[in-house]
Amino acid sequence: MTDTIDVVGIVGSLRRQSFSRRLALALTAVAPASLKVDLAPIGGLPLYDQDEDADPPAPWREFRERVRRADAVLFVTPEYNRSVPGVLKNAIDVGSRPYGQSAWNGKPCAVVSCSPGSQGAFGANHHLRQSLVFLNMPVMQQPEAYIGGVDKLVDENGKFSNPSTGEFCRGVMASFERWIQTVRGGG
Amino acid sequence: MTDTIDVVGIVGSLRRQSFSRRLALALTAVAPASLKVDLAPIGGLPLYDQDEDADPPAPWREFRERVRRADAVLFVTPEYNRSVPGVLKNAIDVGSRPYGQSAWNGKPCAVVSCSPGSQGAFGANHHLRQSLVFLNMPVMQQPEAYIGGVDKLVDENGKFSNPSTGEFCRGVMASFERWIQTVRGGG
Amino acid sequence: MTDTIDVVGIVGSLRRQSFSRRLALALTAVAPASLKVDLAPIGGLPLYDQDEDADPPAPWREFRERVRRADAVLFVTPEYNRSVPGVLKNAIDVGSRPYGQSAWNGKPCAVVSCSPGSQGAFGANHHLRQSLVFLNMPVMQQPEAYIGGVDKLVDENGKFSNPSTGEFCRGVMASFERWIQTVRGGG
Amino acid sequence: MTDTIDVVGIVGSLRRQSFSRRLALALTAVAPASLKVDLAPIGGLPLYDQDEDADPPAPWREFRERVRRADAVLFVTPEYNRSVPGVLKNAIDVGSRPYGQSAWNGKPCAVVSCSPGSQGAFGANHHLRQSLVFLNMPVMQQPEAYIGGVDKLVDENGKFSNPSTGEFCRGVMASFERWIQTVRGGG
Repeated sequence: MTDTIDVVGIVGSLRRQSFSRRLALALTAVAPASLKVDLAPIGGLPLYDQDEDADPPAPWREFRERVRRADAVLFVTPEYNRSVPGVLKNAIDVGSRPYGQSAWNGKPCAVVSCSPGSQGAFGANHHLRQSLVFLNMPVMQQPEAYIGGVDKLVDENGKFSNPSTGEFCRGVMASFERWIQTVRGGG
Repeated sequence: MTDTIDVVGIVGSLRRQSFSRRLALALTAVAPASLKVDLAPIGGLPLYDQDEDADPPAPWREFRERVRRADAVLFVTPEYNRSVPGVLKNAIDVGSRPYGQSAWNGKPCAVVSCSPGSQGAFGANHHLRQSLVFLNMPVMQQPEAYIGGVDKLVDENGKFSNPSTGEFCRGVMASFERWIQTVRGGG
Repeated sequence: MTDTIDVVGIVGSLRRQSFSRRLALALTAVAPASLKVDLAPIGGLPLYDQDEDADPPAPWREFRERVRRADAVLFVTPEYNRSVPGVLKNAIDVGSRPYGQSAWNGKPCAVVSCSPGSQGAFGANHHLRQSLVFLNMPVMQQPEAYIGGVDKLVDENGKFSNPSTGEFCRGVMASFERWIQTVRGGG
Repeated sequence: MTDTIDVVGIVGSLRRQSFSRRLALALTAVAPASLKVDLAPIGGLPLYDQDEDADPPAPWREFRERVRRADAVLFVTPEYNRSVPGVLKNAIDVGSRPYGQSAWNGKPCAVVSCSPGSQGAFGANHHLRQSLVFLNMPVMQQPEAYIGGVDKLVDENGKFSNPSTGEFCRGVMASFERWIQTVRGGG
């Protein structure tokens, strides 16, 4: 019997019909049974302000608690202006504080980026990875997942409309499960 | 007679006593007389959500209008988690939309980054520069300004407590004025 | 009468039939008449070693001299392992030394990156731009040029096989000329 | 009984008295007994050229073989022009080819960067990490190691002249051993 792995999914766009959200749902559906992926909303998080750390707003506390409970993190994000969307970076900043109490610490993770265009949000993907170094989050290296043309690959119900994309993403999630087991098994 | 150049200053931290804000004030004080630097607040900007573009919140409209009026932009920022603070990236995202109507387009700019530690927020500085490419903002290359140990170099009234840092920053602002003139004079 | 602008072209791949070389030739052919683009070979440059600076190898001296004579620089590069090819980075390093005598200093430049895949060497393009900050090379921000699928867009004689790519690249070179004029006209 | 772990060390500078080489030696001396670190020279590697893949130069073959034999990789590098030195990037490119036969694949690694200045080669450190994603090399996230002021911290015999730097680096190497065990233990 395999234990269930609690994966918190963070989606980098607030738009209701966002491609990233659809893709996150589609990834969830093709994940190995042991991975329970649950999306944590980030749109209600007030902008990070260190002056609030002494008495943090309730949404910060809840988000930090949700991340802390998770065994692993799945980031699914578009690119805004060649980098991580502000809304996603704010969630990362909120989760990382107060100093010394980061909720992200040590959690294995994966990054999937997407765009309607051909580049699949390469810039956002790698900027996010630079933050993961500081956050001490062991990140899966391969397969890299830059999903270009996402608007044609995932439908509005979060189903893959393209079988080969579905197979690729099934492989991404299977690798992610192995990566999580590797990181957890160690030490 | 020289025309006044309207520079909007964007500070990447909301903390009231933030080192970036102090540094922005100190930079303003040593700028050439032709540069009128005015800080635009970004803490009241709701998180960017494309669904709101049809009827944008008032703070978005005001911020976009403020940026649009400016001749140039000065970014002063700390580093959060090896990248641009979410609060600053959100302001960039808000100013860049709706698609095709970016308020940042074509404006010459400079980036000054700072940290209490020794690295001067190098990671934030260069991630921000990647966004500036997409935003079509000609950015001053030299002098680079990574102000490490900023807590000891600028006091709480926004005065340089270290004369050589003051001289360095005076040079940064003088170069910035020349850069703005170069970009505006051309074409 | 317009002066001729001497542009040195640097190609980031040594392969004889490299797509970057073909693309560089194709870009040259659609450049405004005022731009004289001339490719400088970099395959014969010994690896940079500071111990050789006292008595530099002839290929280093000739390359530095060639760059120093140029009015502007056009980089055309593939991506190797998500970054700038070592061969191109070595040329940059060689041209930047000895310390304080960089041949690149102040020269306006443009970056065109390409790949057979869809991403057009985004990673190489932006890593190169990070070096350009230190080298004090004012770089054209827009249009960005990530030429994906380059194997199908440029033939082995360096002609565009796709008219719309040809038009896009003609626009890139026209913008590059304006950028050079802007930077030279200033100050 | 613990098995010996064969770590190949790659130093990003060719200068005989390079600080990176001294630091690599110093790191070797404070590594756990199980880690056998052996520096592989990269100065004799001809610049990568895909046309040579059919009949590769002997130094390429030997380098690829050396990397292939290793259990793990330690990179110690300066920063040249805000990025990875060309000489180091060339070694990475050589080791990664021919396509599909990368010698680096799957090997756990660590990155230590250094500079005489205060920033400790942050830019080189993170550009290198972007390549490691593609190379499928699980990289240690923490502790990050940016050794600023390295000229005063390590002497010409590769001994730490500063005890606290020595302790920090001993911790880096101990964490690296645990990271290697984690990655090897998994799967």
